[in-house]
Amino acid sequence: MWPVQISKQRRRRQQQLQQHGRALLKRVEQRQRWAWQATNRSDLHDGSFHVAISPVLVIAQCFGLMPVCGVRAATSRGLSFSRRSWRTCYSLLYIGAISFDALFAVNFALHGGLDMRSVEPIVFNGSILWASYQFLQLARQWPQLMRRWARVESHLPPYASWKEREQLARRIHSVASVLLSLSLMEHLLSIISSVYHKVCPLRQDPVESYLYAVAVQFFHVFPYSNWLGWLGKLLNVLLTFGWNYIDLFVILVSIGLSHLLTRLTRQLQQLVERPMPEKFWTYVRTRYRSIVELIYDVDDAISGITFISFGSNVYFICLQLLKSINEMPSTMHAVYFYFSLAFLIGRSLSVLLFVSAVHERARDPLRLLQLVPPSGYLSEVQRLANELSSDNVSLSGLRFFNVTRKLCLTVAGSIVTYELVLIQFHEDEKSWDCQAGKQ
Amino acid sequence: MWPVQISKQRRRRQQQLQQHGRALLKRVEQRQRWAWQATNRSDLHDGSFHVAISPVLVIAQCFGLMPVCGVRAATSRGLSFSRRSWRTCYSLLYIGAISFDALFAVNFALHGGLDMRSVEPIVFNGSILWASYQFLQLARQWPQLMRRWARVESHLPPYASWKEREQLARRIHSVASVLLSLSLMEHLLSIISSVYHKVCPLRQDPVESYLYAVAVQFFHVFPYSNWLGWLGKLLNVLLTFGWNYIDLFVILVSIGLSHLLTRLTRQLQQLVERPMPEKFWTYVRTRYRSIVELIYDVDDAISGITFISFGSNVYFICLQLLKSINEMPSTMHAVYFYFSLAFLIGRSLSVLLFVSAVHERARDPLRLLQLVPPSGYLSEVQRLANELSSDNVSLSGLRFFNVTRKLCLTVAGSIVTYELVLIQFHEDEKSWDCQAGKQ
Amino acid sequence: MWPVQISKQRRRRQQQLQQHGRALLKRVEQRQRWAWQATNRSDLHDGSFHVAISPVLVIAQCFGLMPVCGVRAATSRGLSFSRRSWRTCYSLLYIGAISFDALFAVNFALHGGLDMRSVEPIVFNGSILWASYQFLQLARQWPQLMRRWARVESHLPPYASWKEREQLARRIHSVASVLLSLSLMEHLLSIISSVYHKVCPLRQDPVESYLYAVAVQFFHVFPYSNWLGWLGKLLNVLLTFGWNYIDLFVILVSIGLSHLLTRLTRQLQQLVERPMPEKFWTYVRTRYRSIVELIYDVDDAISGITFISFGSNVYFICLQLLKSINEMPSTMHAVYFYFSLAFLIGRSLSVLLFVSAVHERARDPLRLLQLVPPSGYLSEVQRLANELSSDNVSLSGLRFFNVTRKLCLTVAGSIVTYELVLIQFHEDEKSWDCQAGKQ
Amino acid sequence: MWPVQISKQRRRRQQQLQQHGRALLKRVEQRQRWAWQATNRSDLHDGSFHVAISPVLVIAQCFGLMPVCGVRAATSRGLSFSRRSWRTCYSLLYIGAISFDALFAVNFALHGGLDMRSVEPIVFNGSILWASYQFLQLARQWPQLMRRWARVESHLPPYASWKEREQLARRIHSVASVLLSLSLMEHLLSIISSVYHKVCPLRQDPVESYLYAVAVQFFHVFPYSNWLGWLGKLLNVLLTFGWNYIDLFVILVSIGLSHLLTRLTRQLQQLVERPMPEKFWTYVRTRYRSIVELIYDVDDAISGITFISFGSNVYFICLQLLKSINEMPSTMHAVYFYFSLAFLIGRSLSVLLFVSAVHERARDPLRLLQLVPPSGYLSEVQRLANELSSDNVSLSGLRFFNVTRKLCLTVAGSIVTYELVLIQFHEDEKSWDCQAGKQ
Repeated sequence: MWPVQISKQRRRRQQQLQQHGRALLKRVEQRQRWAWQATNRSDLHDGSFHVAISPVLVIAQCFGLMPVCGVRAATSRGLSFSRRSWRTCYSLLYIGAISFDALFAVNFALHGGLDMRSVEPIVFNGSILWASYQFLQLARQWPQLMRRWARVESHLPPYASWKEREQLARRIHSVASVLLSLSLMEHLLSIISSVYHKVCPLRQDPVESYLYAVAVQFFHVFPYSNWLGWLGKLLNVLLTFGWNYIDLFVILVSIGLSHLLTRLTRQLQQLVERPMPEKFWTYVRTRYRSIVELIYDVDDAISGITFISFGSNVYFICLQLLKSINEMPSTMHAVYFYFSLAFLIGRSLSVLLFVSAVHERARDPLRLLQLVPPSGYLSEVQRLANELSSDNVSLSGLRFFNVTRKLCLTVAGSIVTYELVLIQFHEDEKSWDCQAGKQ
Repeated sequence: MWPVQISKQRRRRQQQLQQHGRALLKRVEQRQRWAWQATNRSDLHDGSFHVAISPVLVIAQCFGLMPVCGVRAATSRGLSFSRRSWRTCYSLLYIGAISFDALFAVNFALHGGLDMRSVEPIVFNGSILWASYQFLQLARQWPQLMRRWARVESHLPPYASWKEREQLARRIHSVASVLLSLSLMEHLLSIISSVYHKVCPLRQDPVESYLYAVAVQFFHVFPYSNWLGWLGKLLNVLLTFGWNYIDLFVILVSIGLSHLLTRLTRQLQQLVERPMPEKFWTYVRTRYRSIVELIYDVDDAISGITFISFGSNVYFICLQLLKSINEMPSTMHAVYFYFSLAFLIGRSLSVLLFVSAVHERARDPLRLLQLVPPSGYLSEVQRLANELSSDNVSLSGLRFFNVTRKLCLTVAGSIVTYELVLIQFHEDEKSWDCQAGKQ
Repeated sequence: MWPVQISKQRRRRQQQLQQHGRALLKRVEQRQRWAWQATNRSDLHDGSFHVAISPVLVIAQCFGLMPVCGVRAATSRGLSFSRRSWRTCYSLLYIGAISFDALFAVNFALHGGLDMRSVEPIVFNGSILWASYQFLQLARQWPQLMRRWARVESHLPPYASWKEREQLARRIHSVASVLLSLSLMEHLLSIISSVYHKVCPLRQDPVESYLYAVAVQFFHVFPYSNWLGWLGKLLNVLLTFGWNYIDLFVILVSIGLSHLLTRLTRQLQQLVERPMPEKFWTYVRTRYRSIVELIYDVDDAISGITFISFGSNVYFICLQLLKSINEMPSTMHAVYFYFSLAFLIGRSLSVLLFVSAVHERARDPLRLLQLVPPSGYLSEVQRLANELSSDNVSLSGLRFFNVTRKLCLTVAGSIVTYELVLIQFHEDEKSWDCQAGKQ
Repeated sequence: MWPVQISKQRRRRQQQLQQHGRALLKRVEQRQRWAWQATNRSDLHDGSFHVAISPVLVIAQCFGLMPVCGVRAATSRGLSFSRRSWRTCYSLLYIGAISFDALFAVNFALHGGLDMRSVEPIVFNGSILWASYQFLQLARQWPQLMRRWARVESHLPPYASWKEREQLARRIHSVASVLLSLSLMEHLLSIISSVYHKVCPLRQDPVESYLYAVAVQFFHVFPYSNWLGWLGKLLNVLLTFGWNYIDLFVILVSIGLSHLLTRLTRQLQQLVERPMPEKFWTYVRTRYRSIVELIYDVDDAISGITFISFGSNVYFICLQLLKSINEMPSTMHAVYFYFSLAFLIGRSLSVLLFVSAVHERARDPLRLLQLVPPSGYLSEVQRLANELSSDNVSLSGLRFFNVTRKLCLTVAGSIVTYELVLIQFHEDEKSWDCQAGKQ
């Protein structure tokens, strides 16, 4: 049933509503001012992305990534990058070490004959090397990017409660701890399955044999020595962390960006069905615009990392599925293998879902705008609706592909096709040889 | 030829038309009020989706799916869900039974060696298990969803005649009975072809031999016993019904949603070429919006089921096409096989066409809006046109893909590609072995 | 450099221009009226689609397709369809004959073993059978469709000269004669290559041997007899014409639709840079709308035929490319084979380009609207621009795919993929066997 | 934070800003006039595309491509095309020579048996022959196209400094010299690898042997003679240059078009956040429109060349990847081969990135328009925004595909698929045979 008669009463009610809208707007502003002061008083848990992500960055720095100073600072103003800080030196040392490792891996692979499987260590080393370089580049832009992010955050509608304020940090910390624990568990399983159930031992001592397998690219050139084995193991740990961290970092940044959009949408949701004044819509439009511009800037900064993340995940899923046809030498190997495969697919799917959420959150306001009543459908609302329907906000892989939920099916289809074709080149004898791949 | 002169006469005629439009609007409202009262007086055949789908839900409940109470109630207000009702218990029992069956199937498949063909029972059991769980979840949301649906229905233009009112119910019942009869016929054919033309009998008695084949996953573990055979057959019947019901349910919900859109479009069709007042367009826009929001909500509730439906259909079509290369052991087998294949492809195509109809019906009003005369092209019309062209209404498979008619060609192309590649791994000796797959 | 000062002079000039625009409009109308009378005086070459396509329809009727009465009538009012006319009977006889032929072909193929190559006669017969049925259905709708088409034509800007008026007919006749001559030449070449260079003669007399090969599906059941051979040859000629006519018909209808859009665009092109009154734009918009609605109606009527045309072309290109690997038994065979392949690819490409031209012509006005000066950018112009950018006008194959130029690459990519995979199943011994496939 | 109160002060400030805007506009105009005069005074480095590309065209003319007169002229007015000029004759001679070469290549390939690899010289010769013909056609349109380009350039905002003015020329010259040097290096490497490390020498003298291999298509017909060898080598050099020049030309034209869009965007960037008068937006819109129309015209003229460029690059990447599986006969061969492969992939990727930049630059203004303040969001801004979001500006390959960054992944995916399938037909014995392919 639709409104039958617009009597004068109705017009009066509308004016009242509009006044109500203005009053509401003022209240919102006041709350915002109050919230702002509150934030300044206590810097703990101010709900900013900078504070939420800092523990994860500290861990990354332990492994030589993201050498930016002041990650534990209370606000983003404390961030800085210096070429001469010890963090940068440590990071450069790390890059140098894995470059050497990569060279040895290339040398080892070239003596085997190139195919899908023997290039595995090259792809593994190469992608992490490239990512490390990208993280170094990112570290230079990080302070400025975080300051922009903080500026965008400060202009958004304030948090209503402590619970809401802690939400972002809690989400980031839980995702990070789950992913890092699982990757640790996968690494330990790989060690156990290698040490205790060695099929073709390369050396008599099981630990020596394991070290030999881990650092086989060195021992292809140098004679066996324990310290070189432990060095290889150390590098292997650093690389494995780096490999997991690429995906984790992309997920966390996406969570942060989605959160910004959600905050704006939540406010919109409450007010959209009342006739609001033009000023409110200008506010919403400019806020939305500033978030979108931030997303574009973040994308420029991290799209190289996103590209590596997706590319290497697709490659390793193809490879592991190809390996899955082989018979497993022992139950321990089978347990490790299927855990590792499930972890890999799960991690890749999470990256895709979290990153594509940015695209979906950015479309949400369009659906809300369609609920604006005719009396409140001012020219600013129309402009916002037009802009929302014409732009296509999402993170991307070097702008070669946009990450949306649709991408999942395309990627899955390609993997199935490649898999079917690859299986034909499958040689059984190569399976489960004694060189432990990337563990 | 275009209007040459806008004389005063013309303006007067336009005013008359607009008055006419308002009078028409009032008449429509009145008829609506009348229709509303009529509906309240006789609840039989009130043309609502709830009443139309109730017989199908009753059948589903006999097979342990959708344990919601009050499906035979006169209005959606009678619906409820309780964890402790016997329907829920029955449903949980059903899920438990097929879980056990799935475990036995996995165990049996693992002892055979994994490939496209041996995973068939796992995919079959697994997809129905997941779907049953989804139906249980859906049952909890069903009462609220139906009430929302009824609210949307009550605000739509009323039916003009008894015939129109019965249309939805008749369509749903005929589609359901055709699909269920065909699936029954397919199942009977599978039994006949198995019992009378056994190639390699596993036991002497033909019935025992059939039961052995049907419940082979049990007899791989336990010794043969008749009661276990009949239990296996019972589970097999339940599973086969569930498998057909997934597709049927998705089709029926799509018919219901398309019907809502058609009702709105039909009214629009009659009035679109006259200059109608702004209020009419606000009415149309808010009605259209409410239907679209309902579609989004229904999609959230059933997109998991849609995903399983499409996924399992693609898998089974690939598998059956792969089997089609084998030589058939007897004419009876050939008849059954090609009937089964045709039924499978027909059913999958119907799902796609019925579900994609929602997308097409949602686009129809856009074409009608282009016929609005310039004098009646008010700002609300323009807003509706903008909103229609910017949103992309359709059901989806977990939002990974939208179901539109274009999807058909993509899926067909993929099936052909996979088929061509799969044929290469085709081993003839495995064909038509004595384990009747999913019949 | 942009307009620096809008002095009063300029405003006066603008008013003059607007007056000029109105005068121009009147002149256009007058010319239209004149043209209309002229058209009524001489019905020969009135530039209508009905008159232009009539000779092609006459030829089609000789081969039993499109049994509509009055195709030679002066206007579309003379068209009619009757179930009892001798044309319909002839057409039904034709469909009956090729149905029998198809049954024999299926029987013959089933005794060979199904693969990509042996199903060739089934696909060939089946697609023409389906198309004939579609043409019969189309014949029933044809009179009404042509009358609607004539109505749309009568409201378009009139032709400026005799030359322009003849353009459509000349284009249709030249395309039809080129395509039909080439198909005749291809058929003759196939006879020559078969008769004179028989590799494995089935009978001693070369003509008998040829007839045996052409009607092999009959002689698989019946003993050889000359009259059955000639009957088979007659059916073969009818089928080959039908096969070419499917593509030709789709091309000619597309030319007609494109021509309508071109006429409107040509007028727009002349007037778009002057400030025209609102009435002019209402005229353009409603004219454009009526053409688009005609395109939708034509698509509903012929999309089944378009689907067959594209589907069978893709299948036969795949098949011929697959055959191209075989060694040719003689130069004559090679000449025929490559001519046939080139003709097939050329014909398929023409269908795609002509049909996709409809889509491109329908987009043209959007580009012209962007040249409208600011003073002439009235609300009707904006509405037209919005409508043009939101709808997606094109012919389609049963709405499963829209025919645009982009489709070409998708199809070519698929053909290459399938070809590469198919080559693997290629058995050389089957190549160039003595059963001449579809010639 | 959003503007809380629009006091009178604010309105006054807005008026001031608007006045400021008009003053700014005048200043811009004046600077433009000054710049124009400056341009007329010194024709050297006037920043026009015509002057920037002229050295590259001169080089092309040395190799018989683009026979247009007056490429060294100071302005585009000096350009002309004559059928009887010696340049045209030279070009026709060139086309004649490579046509003969192509015929010999086809003859040679036909005696080998057709497959992916033996058609290499045919594809190589054929694509360059077609491109040469396209360049000849383009030469006829070039003078007019350049004059239109100059007209568009003259209406754009003038350069601010000498540095900016030289930017286009410097960019074009550096890209051209890098690409041509690399192609020269690749050609020399191919000679070295062929001459010094001949695996199976066809003649005793290494130079003779090399000439024999280069002109093998001739010596298949005629007996060996030195002058024919050198002629073959000359043709080979001409073809190799032509092959590289196709890509280079497409890149340079794209740089020119992107530069036009960048100039407009740069001005917009400075002024977009101030409230500018309507006239400014009319200026921007018509300028943007004129660039887009130029892009469409350029696309019509060169899309054939773009098509060949993309098609031949995809073919040769597939072929070289296929060859990469073979064992290399010597280190020199390996160095040459991987350099050649890297150069090919790098060149193809550059073409794609440079051409797709046109599409991206054309979208940039849309993002800027979203920053226009509400007070400056006039109807012209809205019109420009609508037009920008509805048209899809990009260069294309015969309009079969638009060149955007997304194309890259599609092409890469296809190459991987084809590669995987092709590898199966790989015969090792054919690898590195003694006929040097296209070097």
